[in-house]
Amino acid sequence: MNALRTIEWVGDLDGHVALIDQTLLPERLEILRCADVECIWEAIRNLRVRGAPAIGIAAAMGVVLAVRAAPEDDPQRLIMRIDEACDYLATARPTAVNLFWALERMKRCARGAAAELATPSPPWGEGGARGSVNQIKLALLNEAKAIRDEDAAMCRAIGRAGLHLIREGIGVLTHCNAGGLATAEYGTALAPLYAAHEAGRHFRVFATETRPLLQGSRLTAWELQRADIDVTVICDSMAAQVMRASKVNLVIVGADRIAANGDVANKIGTYGLAVLAKAHAIPFYVAAPSSTFDLSIADGSQIPIEQRSAEEIRRGFGRLTAPEDVACYSPAFDVTPAELVTGIFTDRGLIAPVTRAAIADAIRP
Amino acid sequence: MNALRTIEWVGDLDGHVALIDQTLLPERLEILRCADVECIWEAIRNLRVRGAPAIGIAAAMGVVLAVRAAPEDDPQRLIMRIDEACDYLATARPTAVNLFWALERMKRCARGAAAELATPSPPWGEGGARGSVNQIKLALLNEAKAIRDEDAAMCRAIGRAGLHLIREGIGVLTHCNAGGLATAEYGTALAPLYAAHEAGRHFRVFATETRPLLQGSRLTAWELQRADIDVTVICDSMAAQVMRASKVNLVIVGADRIAANGDVANKIGTYGLAVLAKAHAIPFYVAAPSSTFDLSIADGSQIPIEQRSAEEIRRGFGRLTAPEDVACYSPAFDVTPAELVTGIFTDRGLIAPVTRAAIADAIRP
Repeated sequence: MNALRTIEWVGDLDGHVALIDQTLLPERLEILRCADVECIWEAIRNLRVRGAPAIGIAAAMGVVLAVRAAPEDDPQRLIMRIDEACDYLATARPTAVNLFWALERMKRCARGAAAELATPSPPWGEGGARGSVNQIKLALLNEAKAIRDEDAAMCRAIGRAGLHLIREGIGVLTHCNAGGLATAEYGTALAPLYAAHEAGRHFRVFATETRPLLQGSRLTAWELQRADIDVTVICDSMAAQVMRASKVNLVIVGADRIAANGDVANKIGTYGLAVLAKAHAIPFYVAAPSSTFDLSIADGSQIPIEQRSAEEIRRGFGRLTAPEDVACYSPAFDVTPAELVTGIFTDRGLIAPVTRAAIADAIRP
Repeated sequence: MNALRTIEWVGDLDGHVALIDQTLLPERLEILRCADVECIWEAIRNLRVRGAPAIGIAAAMGVVLAVRAAPEDDPQRLIMRIDEACDYLATARPTAVNLFWALERMKRCARGAAAELATPSPPWGEGGARGSVNQIKLALLNEAKAIRDEDAAMCRAIGRAGLHLIREGIGVLTHCNAGGLATAEYGTALAPLYAAHEAGRHFRVFATETRPLLQGSRLTAWELQRADIDVTVICDSMAAQVMRASKVNLVIVGADRIAANGDVANKIGTYGLAVLAKAHAIPFYVAAPSSTFDLSIADGSQIPIEQRSAEEIRRGFGRLTAPEDVACYSPAFDVTPAELVTGIFTDRGLIAPVTRAAIADAIRP
């Protein structure tokens, strides 16, 4: 089958963004086509596109949509307009690190292009300025496409780094969705699985459903099934039993952020799986692009734990499943200490054992 | 507040069974009134009444409903009719041990009453036989009420056995619903909490929602909130984080069956919680009436793990939350090895440490 293209730009500067509307999965696969920035903002806000890398790509493409038809004929005014678009897109999901990273990159790209195009001809010379404006717009489109392509290449590299561990006949447990749907294509935690599948190996994946938002059962199960990979859904509470029954040889999860010492922030439930894996002597791996490492953070204790809305627990599926006004505690993610992590697959190879020195060595800029 | 009366007989032999329809919780509290055995059968089958002790009580009362207006005027014929009613009720939930236990007890009661009432007057002597028939019916009603009252008393005894552990200000985590709704009233795992609350102590309970059927968020949260006990719902995947954040000092769960060595079969997810509790040095307690011990089973390896329908995972909330035809692995319960159990509260006191000898000593008939 073809790799799933979660988000891409179709056509040239007059084109549009095509993205999989993930809120409709697993019930149906529908492509949302965005021709204006408001459509992208809404898609990010309402989780039609989710997963840190995919959000970054969407935001970058959103900047292009925002300014491609801008009437400004002066590069500096266009740059102001680009900054405004970035400020607007940054409000779609205020805590998404990749969103800000991608927007910063687009701003830098615009300024770089403008500086490069600056000519000795007077800045009010209309022909030259309008030409510059168009070239900046084209540079933005190329940058957004590059962000997408680099992400896809990074995922492939992660897949190669982890391929050797996916041996014939094993069972692999994964949590949430760090798959093609969270990235341009191919995914991070799922990348070694796709690589092994392409290499003709057979194995079984257990996907935890991942309450409260069920990214495991809705998305991971969907994309693995679509790729003809043997996948079984379990409730989060069943992971320990699956391990005890010797059905799992390996755990692979993604990461939201990795501290300098190797502590891993990831979807809530990850830490518990790491503890359970250790108790059952099952290797526990993390897969993440090198951009996920935040070397400015010494260890996981410095990562604040975001709380999500109680309604996601009480009415996660439309129907009321808890007393209307009952208190809920709903951390969005947890921190797995480095000592529970067997290794980290990155686009720069495998880091194992996970030590501060090994990370500094692998992730140095 | 008044203790929640999950199921009771209202009135005399002409009366009816009143039970809380648990399928409507937490959305609304509605009392289902059953005046015939079919109503009870349907209530058991469709989980309107659930929890091993409550099912046993419902079945016993169902036997009374089945025969109270029986036209038979011969004790032996009435007993045949009672046996038929028991066979019918046994089909409501084929794997519920307490259901069979209660039905056996009702059969024994009928035979005992018939034997006691046997007189030298000829068995076809209508007045005497009809009188006997009525007395057997009354004996059945008394037996059903006794099963209910004994259960309530047993729960109170469990509460007293665990009361000392619920210290002022602590956090307690519980799983599924081993509360008043699973018993006549008061519950097993929740009994020490109700006892401590009545003693004026303040503490916080974390209720895991307990996928796939959400008994924790739907039932435990509802009944604790109704009793004015501070309760917070979490997804199953959040238990490890709650423990790591030092919010939990104690775990208490119920049990479906306990082997002679102390291995505990209980709702899926219990074993994982026990592993996590150990990793965080948190005491892990089980609460269960002495009838839950099955001394004929040497250890947990002899307890078969029942698989439940994949639809409970894929469409647990009405809406499709996984690919329609994806494989699911859905064990109904798991087995927690005795070495992970700090102690077991029973109606005969606390068993701790959990050893084969201590269990044999406490549970001897």
